[in-house]
Amino acid sequence: MEDCLFCTIVAGDIPCYKVYEDEKTLAFLDINPINKGHTLVIPKVHVSRISEFEDEDLVGFYRALQKVTGAVERAVRLDGLNLFVNQGKDAGQLIPHFHCHITPRLKGDGLKMEIPSLKLSEDEFVDTMVKIKMALTD
Amino acid sequence: MEDCLFCTIVAGDIPCYKVYEDEKTLAFLDINPINKGHTLVIPKVHVSRISEFEDEDLVGFYRALQKVTGAVERAVRLDGLNLFVNQGKDAGQLIPHFHCHITPRLKGDGLKMEIPSLKLSEDEFVDTMVKIKMALTD
Repeated sequence: MEDCLFCTIVAGDIPCYKVYEDEKTLAFLDINPINKGHTLVIPKVHVSRISEFEDEDLVGFYRALQKVTGAVERAVRLDGLNLFVNQGKDAGQLIPHFHCHITPRLKGDGLKMEIPSLKLSEDEFVDTMVKIKMALTD
Repeated sequence: MEDCLFCTIVAGDIPCYKVYEDEKTLAFLDINPINKGHTLVIPKVHVSRISEFEDEDLVGFYRALQKVTGAVERAVRLDGLNLFVNQGKDAGQLIPHFHCHITPRLKGDGLKMEIPSLKLSEDEFVDTMVKIKMALTD
């Protein structure tokens, strides 16, 4: 879809810290992470709401989410995690292309869902990306 | 699993405001709703984390989530919604049986993910439950 940031990322026209890709799905680090390892999983097809998914895209998406979440758990320090989707502007959806956040949580991290971003250096982004990629091949 | 509230609900030993059930999945209203229509979707099998799902349970769960979310959208007034899973005590998981919240959102509802519950009467619960059940047959 034109003018959609995530479609542009899927097309490869904007770079991302990609941690996973298959035929249906792409996963990359959130550039405003809540904690290290904060990852976005998106379908390659442009849908904005869960009800718009064709069945095979839905199944592919959630299989990938399961896989990537396991990898994040193995790759970074965390005490728990949240999986969340904001659907609609009034629910906090900033980019109208369906995406699920995988947010690692740390005891006492104070997350209340309105959180200042953790600022990571380029090196820290790449390091985290590599760890998750490696964990995916475990 | 013994001593698991949601397993007890699945077994039918504790009542719930059930809005959907199939072979793999159960959905019922959250009794501490954020907004009307706040629903929990759970797998019947006891797993606590997404990575513990067998593939067929995972696929069944997310097909049901898609279906129930569409029904909630049709059944209650909302401007958007969140789908979220808390995995692990430190991520806010109170009951160690995997569950996804479907939380309808209203413009300006002030949700910051730590929210006072909306108190509904028995009649309002039942009315909402019936609307969602009906929407599922649309």
